[in-house]
Amino acid sequence: MKLIRFGESGKEKTGIIIKDKKYDTSAFGEDYNETFFETDGLARLTNFIEDNMLVEVAEDVRLGSPLARPSKLICIGLNYVDHAKETNATPPTEPVIFMKATSAIVGPDDHITIPKNSKKTDWEVELAVVIGKKASYVSEADAMDYVAGYLLHNDVSEREFQIERGGTWDKGKGCDTFAPLGPFFATKDEITDPHQLRLWLKVNGQTMQDGNTSNFIFNIPQVVSYTSQFMTLLPGDIISTGTPAGVGLGMKPPVYLKAGDVIELGIDGLGEARQVVADYKG
Amino acid sequence: MKLIRFGESGKEKTGIIIKDKKYDTSAFGEDYNETFFETDGLARLTNFIEDNMLVEVAEDVRLGSPLARPSKLICIGLNYVDHAKETNATPPTEPVIFMKATSAIVGPDDHITIPKNSKKTDWEVELAVVIGKKASYVSEADAMDYVAGYLLHNDVSEREFQIERGGTWDKGKGCDTFAPLGPFFATKDEITDPHQLRLWLKVNGQTMQDGNTSNFIFNIPQVVSYTSQFMTLLPGDIISTGTPAGVGLGMKPPVYLKAGDVIELGIDGLGEARQVVADYKG
Repeated sequence: MKLIRFGESGKEKTGIIIKDKKYDTSAFGEDYNETFFETDGLARLTNFIEDNMLVEVAEDVRLGSPLARPSKLICIGLNYVDHAKETNATPPTEPVIFMKATSAIVGPDDHITIPKNSKKTDWEVELAVVIGKKASYVSEADAMDYVAGYLLHNDVSEREFQIERGGTWDKGKGCDTFAPLGPFFATKDEITDPHQLRLWLKVNGQTMQDGNTSNFIFNIPQVVSYTSQFMTLLPGDIISTGTPAGVGLGMKPPVYLKAGDVIELGIDGLGEARQVVADYKG
Repeated sequence: MKLIRFGESGKEKTGIIIKDKKYDTSAFGEDYNETFFETDGLARLTNFIEDNMLVEVAEDVRLGSPLARPSKLICIGLNYVDHAKETNATPPTEPVIFMKATSAIVGPDDHITIPKNSKKTDWEVELAVVIGKKASYVSEADAMDYVAGYLLHNDVSEREFQIERGGTWDKGKGCDTFAPLGPFFATKDEITDPHQLRLWLKVNGQTMQDGNTSNFIFNIPQVVSYTSQFMTLLPGDIISTGTPAGVGLGMKPPVYLKAGDVIELGIDGLGEARQVVADYKG
């Protein structure tokens, strides 16, 4: 299944994509949130779709994040050797974990807002993994049982806030609009091999990132298992698995986003997104 | 007002403390969550209490976190000079921000569980500030208008996970049970001066921390204003303001928690909490 949420920001309705057409599932009566995943919502939604006529949604409707705000948006840092190298970081010997404020989540085609006083807003195309059931101290062998599916994520990052302002990376990762998600959430069965997906990102038509999840340092079972040793992952929680080479910070000299820039990004099987960059307007 | 949540973990009912007695407010029909704060819940609750007879709750009832799970549990690191010094850190020139997984939140008197494979679980008594309305790019002068109230927080920390395992501090801060909150949430009017509060913590009856919020490096308006430059604070979000000297990491040699240890902590005007330490049982 490919799930979407559409309509006005903050008032999104749920929907589904079937054969490239979007349908409204709001009569199902539940948002795609923690409770949905916790109570076998995917199976119940399947039944609902079989039993009900669905109304098609306008092709050009605004998409929101395909999932409601999760309890956690966890990111894995430096999970591709080439990206670690371009940022002058030593490839990690165990996964690097950081957290993104969930208030940063927006739809796949929403504007990215450059924060006030920001000069170093950067892009990071990533494969994000969605947790389907509560996961604590999960083994690598069992980890995929806890994965509900996948979506596309642009882990937008302000490098000065992240690296030069003291403390952890969190200051530069959770700014508003810094987590465009989607266009859709794909259930696990939609993706044959999540470790063989090409992912790419263009800025103003120029390819900046062109990687493949086959180059993960830590694969999905390792990342899910590892993270679950430090905190309980709840249904609907999202783990973003890191970005390949080609971010602005890695250019010589570095290149950062400015108002009017157009970002396009995609992953095999998980669709494409397009974000226009805007200055903050108070 | 002093708000509580009580009863079985995960099924807490809302309540209130009036003249040291606990009363059930669950007939009010709302949890103390983001929507509650966003929709002027404190004023509506005040009316409800005036208009209704409240039933008293058993004195020995289990308390949960006084507030429902927020979108964010943000912490300020190294916000007391003496604590920065004891951990061999340079006092920061601007606030250090990190995030705690909200799945770590438990009641004030619940067990603290030492994670599997942990040897360095430590304590940190803190004053936590609760945001009352959406805050983005708030000035220091206006910041207190965005504060709804306060509560007591033990920012439990696993020092090996936090410092020695690579990446940010988040691995050692968000383990399950690592955020006991309460006993109660006090509205802003209950605390005359939040910058003149003694806060203390004992382990097995021995005083380990005995500080005062007058020693903040960055005071509450500064912390709220600063954080709001990097992310929008949502109603019900919690910012924990850092810990004074006396943590286990700062002892020579360091001292960490073990099963059976009893932690007692408190802040002037915000009550006391008591946590027994337990080993993880799978």
